[in-house]
Amino acid sequence: MAIDLSAVGKELPSSTFEYTEKDVMLYALGVGATTDELDFVYEKNLKVLPTYAVIPGMSAMGGMMGVLEGVNPAMLVHGEQRIGLRGPIPTSGKVTGKGKISAIYDKGSGALLVVDSETMDESGNVLFTNSFGAFIRGEGGFGGERGPSASSKNVPPEKAPDFTIEYKTLPQQAALYRLSGDRNPLHIEPEFAKMGGFDQPILHGLCTFGHVGRAVLHACCGGDPTRLKDFDVRFSGVVFPGETIVTDIWKESSDRFIVQARTAERGEPVISNAAATIA
Amino acid sequence: MAIDLSAVGKELPSSTFEYTEKDVMLYALGVGATTDELDFVYEKNLKVLPTYAVIPGMSAMGGMMGVLEGVNPAMLVHGEQRIGLRGPIPTSGKVTGKGKISAIYDKGSGALLVVDSETMDESGNVLFTNSFGAFIRGEGGFGGERGPSASSKNVPPEKAPDFTIEYKTLPQQAALYRLSGDRNPLHIEPEFAKMGGFDQPILHGLCTFGHVGRAVLHACCGGDPTRLKDFDVRFSGVVFPGETIVTDIWKESSDRFIVQARTAERGEPVISNAAATIA
Repeated sequence: MAIDLSAVGKELPSSTFEYTEKDVMLYALGVGATTDELDFVYEKNLKVLPTYAVIPGMSAMGGMMGVLEGVNPAMLVHGEQRIGLRGPIPTSGKVTGKGKISAIYDKGSGALLVVDSETMDESGNVLFTNSFGAFIRGEGGFGGERGPSASSKNVPPEKAPDFTIEYKTLPQQAALYRLSGDRNPLHIEPEFAKMGGFDQPILHGLCTFGHVGRAVLHACCGGDPTRLKDFDVRFSGVVFPGETIVTDIWKESSDRFIVQARTAERGEPVISNAAATIA
Repeated sequence: MAIDLSAVGKELPSSTFEYTEKDVMLYALGVGATTDELDFVYEKNLKVLPTYAVIPGMSAMGGMMGVLEGVNPAMLVHGEQRIGLRGPIPTSGKVTGKGKISAIYDKGSGALLVVDSETMDESGNVLFTNSFGAFIRGEGGFGGERGPSASSKNVPPEKAPDFTIEYKTLPQQAALYRLSGDRNPLHIEPEFAKMGGFDQPILHGLCTFGHVGRAVLHACCGGDPTRLKDFDVRFSGVVFPGETIVTDIWKESSDRFIVQARTAERGEPVISNAAATIA
């Protein structure tokens, strides 16, 4: 057991993150936005995709790795992600993130490490929150709490979805997305991907998350990023760059939608047990 | 006549330009490189596309606009571009550019303004040169020298090309390329493009240049960027994002190639009278 269980409740060192309009546009292109969504890729009337929240959010997690000393990074996968939006994300700025280790669950086949963070503007107002769940394969069975079951929540009803949105990714999608910060070679280097057990490099989970977030934005929010309040997903499979991400959405109530995504080519689920809350 | 003819011979203020590996990779993706050309889009073994020389080169031209005071920017088009490489371009660095107005020619229908620049590393070694020709529509007929005829040089022989390379551009190609620096709205904003006389936004000439440079790199240099020594083109038409750029190359001698490019969709020439010198 390489995970330090006493870390639960521990606050991570706060971190600052500075970004520009260029970073915001690069992110939008990285998650598949095109000039059909001009406001997200052009500085005139620029708007920020709500899922951009994960980019400053990830920088608040620098201190997390200390808890995982001795863990083989190839065994770590992004399991869950949730963002909470308090208002529009500024198109540029300097923000501060504060995170803490909220839980370490024993899932049997592995451990689930949950880090919660808040990101603040320079006046200290919270702009958005992130909840990040890392699944560490092979590190379960230590007799800890199992935690809530992700696979029993946000289950779609037994009927056809209300919306289905297809986004074809580019063969170079991961190469583009990684310029937003996550330079893990797993997403670009064929030899490294093979060591991780994949035939070819895989798309970043958060790149898939961004595509599915765009589908929610356009299907449920009329393209208005200020209407997305909460987006909560479980990563259930991988996308290979070039594949098509198909998002199915069920309207549960006027302000809540159940979301699932799969690849068109293999029919594999990639995001499951997901929900979006809309204003 | 809004062009200051006395400017010929004038040195422009020197300028510095700083860039990172991220900028180099973003440029490569902007001119259509994919993970099939991994060394150009991945920091491990990173190589710089020779046509990247235009990016620091353009920053040396800040002072040029003073010469064009009163000229309607919508009348200015990129007419010609030449780069000369002295060695591999560093993957990051701080460089200094020095430019001068070399000539203002009277082409009848317009004026051709030629700016030559050298870009140096921090030790003062020249890394590459740029020769930039701006054509200003409607500003000719002032009785100046006509200058050399661009359309009579580098004419392909009457035979099939030795190489033909097709690169399909992305619908979002210009949106991506512009993050390398040239934010002219002509390349992204439909209303602005209409004012310039185009049905839709057009690709940057230098984005087309980068695609054609990649074709030369792979067809003539075995993919080795240090082998391209000189690349000289005339812009003869526009590419709309999403179109396919077809580059035809004729081998003139062991170290010199004649180059032309057109769109597959409309058959329109986009780069003409071009040549590449190879080591």
